[in-house]
Amino acid sequence: MLFTSPLHEEIRALLLRRDAQALRAFCAPLHEADLAAALAEFEPADAAWVLTALDSDQGAWVLSHLGPDDQADIAPLLADEQLARMISHMDADDRVDLVRHLPAERSDRVLHLLAQAEREDIRKLGSYGEGTAGALMTSEYATLSPSLTAREALEKLRLEAPDKETIYYAYVIDGQRRLLGLVSLKDLILARPESRVAEFMHRELITARVDDPQEEVARKLAKYDLIALPVTNGNEALVGIVTFDDAQDVTEAEATTDFHRMGGSVSLEPTSLRDASIGLLVRKRLPWLLVLVVMNVFSGAGIAYFEDTIAAAVALVFFLPLLIDSGGNAGSQSATLMVRALAVGDVRLRDWLQLLGREVFVALVIGLCMGLAVSCIGLFRGGPDIAVVVALTMVVVVLVGSLIGMSLPFLMTRLRLDPATSSAPLVTSLADISGVLIYFSIATWYLGLPHGS
Amino acid sequence: MLFTSPLHEEIRALLLRRDAQALRAFCAPLHEADLAAALAEFEPADAAWVLTALDSDQGAWVLSHLGPDDQADIAPLLADEQLARMISHMDADDRVDLVRHLPAERSDRVLHLLAQAEREDIRKLGSYGEGTAGALMTSEYATLSPSLTAREALEKLRLEAPDKETIYYAYVIDGQRRLLGLVSLKDLILARPESRVAEFMHRELITARVDDPQEEVARKLAKYDLIALPVTNGNEALVGIVTFDDAQDVTEAEATTDFHRMGGSVSLEPTSLRDASIGLLVRKRLPWLLVLVVMNVFSGAGIAYFEDTIAAAVALVFFLPLLIDSGGNAGSQSATLMVRALAVGDVRLRDWLQLLGREVFVALVIGLCMGLAVSCIGLFRGGPDIAVVVALTMVVVVLVGSLIGMSLPFLMTRLRLDPATSSAPLVTSLADISGVLIYFSIATWYLGLPHGS
Repeated sequence: MLFTSPLHEEIRALLLRRDAQALRAFCAPLHEADLAAALAEFEPADAAWVLTALDSDQGAWVLSHLGPDDQADIAPLLADEQLARMISHMDADDRVDLVRHLPAERSDRVLHLLAQAEREDIRKLGSYGEGTAGALMTSEYATLSPSLTAREALEKLRLEAPDKETIYYAYVIDGQRRLLGLVSLKDLILARPESRVAEFMHRELITARVDDPQEEVARKLAKYDLIALPVTNGNEALVGIVTFDDAQDVTEAEATTDFHRMGGSVSLEPTSLRDASIGLLVRKRLPWLLVLVVMNVFSGAGIAYFEDTIAAAVALVFFLPLLIDSGGNAGSQSATLMVRALAVGDVRLRDWLQLLGREVFVALVIGLCMGLAVSCIGLFRGGPDIAVVVALTMVVVVLVGSLIGMSLPFLMTRLRLDPATSSAPLVTSLADISGVLIYFSIATWYLGLPHGS
Repeated sequence: MLFTSPLHEEIRALLLRRDAQALRAFCAPLHEADLAAALAEFEPADAAWVLTALDSDQGAWVLSHLGPDDQADIAPLLADEQLARMISHMDADDRVDLVRHLPAERSDRVLHLLAQAEREDIRKLGSYGEGTAGALMTSEYATLSPSLTAREALEKLRLEAPDKETIYYAYVIDGQRRLLGLVSLKDLILARPESRVAEFMHRELITARVDDPQEEVARKLAKYDLIALPVTNGNEALVGIVTFDDAQDVTEAEATTDFHRMGGSVSLEPTSLRDASIGLLVRKRLPWLLVLVVMNVFSGAGIAYFEDTIAAAVALVFFLPLLIDSGGNAGSQSATLMVRALAVGDVRLRDWLQLLGREVFVALVIGLCMGLAVSCIGLFRGGPDIAVVVALTMVVVVLVGSLIGMSLPFLMTRLRLDPATSSAPLVTSLADISGVLIYFSIATWYLGLPHGS
């Protein structure tokens, strides 16, 4: 309950008077996305009361727009009949997500209150694995037979429009539901009324398979600027469509997850930062930090190994943060560029070797520039010998850091992990360890200092 | 020329035979997005030859799909007439972007070859500042008068459809082009043929202003699941629409920029990582790294100040990377969560104080857990006194790092900078400096070691 909006305040006023009729009238012209945002700020019991006060249609849409967390808080407070009525008014894909997150016993009771066809549709859509095209798609798409005329097709769409998520694309199928082509509503309007669908439908289709990963489906929709993408099963039969708005949500959630992973947090999904509890934040952030502590123990061990070197030339410690951080910073730059390029499909696994060559050059140029800069500081602080050591270390450290940073995302992808897991902190820690070893090795060698114990 | 695709190879074969007719026939059924991806891998001269070999329509669309860099490479190789013909076949918003990037003299020559109406349209659309809704919108939208019947409106859209970017939404305007309402093609199909547009149009509209930032417009389209968003000028007159596909591109580019900034690179926009030259990568990455070196000099100075402390207890250096990195890591976690939440609009500037309270709690819990963990290592490596010092330091360092990490993005926003500029490396460096000071201050105080010089 951290934040409130003006809309929230107006609804609260009506809520306090428990005036359902006024509330319904007030909300009728508002957009469901705005109402959902306002409702998310209420206590679940109040939000549930508002939902049931709304028109069934609007209540269902607002419930669709709420996040899974809010849905899970509110659903238990609705009577079975109320929830069933809302579910039957929701879009096919949204209601599957809701039912999927209900306790098994509850979902059985609620499904029982729905019409047979709806129940079967939910069961079928709900059977696809999370994260697949099947779990993202809706069953409410328009189909046409190839032998219809444009006039007949338009009439069919007119009749079916209220039950379909979009009628801007209609899919042409045969008796076995095999996908033959696509007709847009624009095509239908432009076609001669007596021409057959088969004559003017598009036959070159962009499609997805039910088990394709959601991110791939979302990327396809964006690449080809599609409003919807048909999804087929193993028998080439049309089983659903994914619409652009659901694809956008996937892309945004994916970017957020990558972003959080890069920063060294596990994703907060499905909660947002705003709604995250203290407990959740600690649980998500702490494990990674502890892993990194363990890794840093190795840096410490590296330092301990060179304790005699340090004791002999304490001035070296001055340059320690500067040098090892530079390696880590260069590495996290490389990792960030690479993780994003892999995520948006700009770069693929097999490109690693070719990119490595370029990275070596880039890192060498950057390392030389930074080595030059740091040698000035070295000259000023410790004389010519120290200047050589820090400059040399800088070049090697930036090179090694960059190579770790650019390779780790590929390695992660190869191991079928999310490349974003090669987060900046992980790269930094690895670069730190190698930085400590490189620095003191070069120092002992060049300055002839005592070796480690 | 790092990468090649199968499609690229097939086109190359036809290109080598200079068989324009076969090339045109081969490409005709292909999608422009795929052709553009393949062409981007050619030398500009070859890409230009392929473009002119294609159908005018298809050539124009492929050119639209190419990135600004590739367009800039290819445009000089096309004759004025060829370029003008392609431009006149491009969508209104795409051609403005292309013309905007031509040298002034060339764009004058090419504009001169276009029809008067097209020329004026390009000049008008091109007059809006980059990054605004005006620069993103297209002028090819469908309008209706409120007094038309559904039948008449449908007939009007049928006639205009070939010239409009979308006819799924038509905007209802009065004589002064003031926006009165919206009618979807679905509404028109469902309406009684004799009913008036004014009777069934939607009056509650989501709109944008020409000078709204592009990211805000993109977010609105996504929030309300719109195919297009009308854009009005200061007089409430409709001047354009932004379509969902262009909004998606903005969102993706924005996420990439934030991602790169967070990793401590300036954005590579408008180039992609794949196309970036070594020089560009060095220029983008080096400045930030040098800034961070300068900051790390302060960490070094902190260490130098405590040189006597270190000389008295070299064992302390073992824990240095571990402790200061933990502060940086906790800080970059907080910064990442906050930057993304600000970017997607989950959190706003005025929420800072409330979030600060929660962050203090989260950081304290995390710090205590990590302090406990590290005290075990301290006990093992250096005895009870060292254990107390490192545990205490860990708690303070995690707390300070987290507060820096969460506050910096707000500060940046406040200063009207991109919050993503508070990148992980910046937070890490700030946390390092404070970490060094905190660690050795606590150590000198608790262990009674000699002070800094």
